Amino acid sequence: MHLPKKVTICDVGPRDGLQTICTAITTAAKIKLVEGLAAAGLARVEAGSFVNPRVMPQMADSGAVLAGIIRRPGVRYRALALNARGWEQAQAAGADHLCLVVLASETFQQKNARSTVAGVMAAYAPVVTAARAQGVYVQGSVGTAFGCPYEGAIASGRILDLVRQWVDYGADEVSLADTTGMADPRQVLDLCTRVRERWPALALSLHFHNTRGLGLANVLAGLQAGVTIYDASVGGLGGCPFAPRASGNICTEDLVHMLHCLGIETGIDLEQLCQVASWLEATLGLPLSGQVMKAGPRWQTHRGGGA
Amino acid sequence: MHLPKKVTICDVGPRDGLQTICTAITTAAKIKLVEGLAAAGLARVEAGSFVNPRVMPQMADSGAVLAGIIRRPGVRYRALALNARGWEQAQAAGADHLCLVVLASETFQQKNARSTVAGVMAAYAPVVTAARAQGVYVQGSVGTAFGCPYEGAIASGRILDLVRQWVDYGADEVSLADTTGMADPRQVLDLCTRVRERWPALALSLHFHNTRGLGLANVLAGLQAGVTIYDASVGGLGGCPFAPRASGNICTEDLVHMLHCLGIETGIDLEQLCQVASWLEATLGLPLSGQVMKAGPRWQTHRGGGA
Repeated sequence: MHLPKKVTICDVGPRDGLQTICTAITTAAKIKLVEGLAAAGLARVEAGSFVNPRVMPQMADSGAVLAGIIRRPGVRYRALALNARGWEQAQAAGADHLCLVVLASETFQQKNARSTVAGVMAAYAPVVTAARAQGVYVQGSVGTAFGCPYEGAIASGRILDLVRQWVDYGADEVSLADTTGMADPRQVLDLCTRVRERWPALALSLHFHNTRGLGLANVLAGLQAGVTIYDASVGGLGGCPFAPRASGNICTEDLVHMLHCLGIETGIDLEQLCQVASWLEATLGLPLSGQVMKAGPRWQTHRGGGA
Repeated sequence: MHLPKKVTICDVGPRDGLQTICTAITTAAKIKLVEGLAAAGLARVEAGSFVNPRVMPQMADSGAVLAGIIRRPGVRYRALALNARGWEQAQAAGADHLCLVVLASETFQQKNARSTVAGVMAAYAPVVTAARAQGVYVQGSVGTAFGCPYEGAIASGRILDLVRQWVDYGADEVSLADTTGMADPRQVLDLCTRVRERWPALALSLHFHNTRGLGLANVLAGLQAGVTIYDASVGGLGGCPFAPRASGNICTEDLVHMLHCLGIETGIDLEQLCQVASWLEATLGLPLSGQVMKAGPRWQTHRGGGA
């Protein structure tokens, strides 16, 4: 099994995780969460998003979160934006990593933003240029890359077209996002292999949801395709708007544990990360879906007796 | 990604699932569970175990369960036994598939049965012969094959030795069991590849726990090694005696969903299986960890509006 030696993880718990759960959390607690993740060794933390606060009131304090954190050298604080206005707010808040999202599904994109895929992409061109001119790292994301709950399967040609557009715009990185947990490992291996063959020098990242339990199997396929950058959410925090009882993003500790078992470096202190997850669970008063935070890593041998 | 075309699944919910949870369930409900699984297309169901009822009172009615089910042609009803006495009881109850378990970990085996690995194996030799003479399908299982909570890693040479012994005894099938959820995909691929290279004609099966979230990733590795028989538990029913909040066996519906996404046949009706899982959840009054029973399969497109 040929796998990369090192992987970079972005924790999206403070954004993708928190935005899909109903429990309120204070700005101070969000700041503590972002700082705790960076202290555990996460090289990237998605601290918030700059979107319409009427649509996404949970993220209305993203500026305050970014302003309130004590930054750690070497850590990038990512902000999500969906248009030029979002980028301006992210810039004002001092985000040094901008994630811009387009959905490959025309139906989902139009439901989400009342704009076509082509219209959204056209509006992003000057944003990428402006952000890069400010020294901000720009990631172009292709959502519903592995399937759409409205349209079903998305032709890989449409995904490759959008990747090409991000590359043409000059994005530093392109990510493929499984927005509603529809990816399977064969599809991940095939699509990532095609992208990597066509753009071998491109920084490619993957964003999986564990909605149907396939999250880490999809990461394994991504690793086999040579992809070295993944999103994940502390404690498995989050959910799925399409399935009230289903889980959201893949869990960061479970991902780190798998990678360490496979001998892949992450730079993350798993024990400290589990402490952050446990603190978060207590703070939210909500059981989280992470498994390693409950079972401990496999190298933690059993201390009690009996079997 | 080279994968098998067809996979056989044994649902171990009525045994491995139920034995690790505290909630009581009537014999009638167990019978209904076994029948429901067979009706959903499971070719094998582990209906119970014949072990010391003082140690495992949850399984004391296994004889009554096997006696009470209306059997479906083509389905095998598996019983677990740990010694000759267990085999005699399984035989009396009419089990047509016997699973005998030895633990590769000397420490764990001795804690479990007050006997050495060699002693347990020696006692199994006449049991395999007797059971096969009765036309019973015999599966020899090697537990803690991917790690032991007491001893940590288990040398692969010890696993291969035990596989060889089962083969020498004439077992119809040999399974490698990840008793406490310590396997990782690279290890699965390596060990299964070695077993299959040495015994190409052997029916090899895998039993994974999802204790640390790695269950389906390990199945993916098993598939890549060419293994076509897997255990799983309906609804993800079960737990881990070593970690109270952790999950148990991999979930049957989530496994079936992954396999169907990969184009692999199982003979199982996923929708009907999810109905069994939902009935079980309601009957036990216990939330189950299965994901597809909550989110639905990926091909079930979203019917509501909004995003």
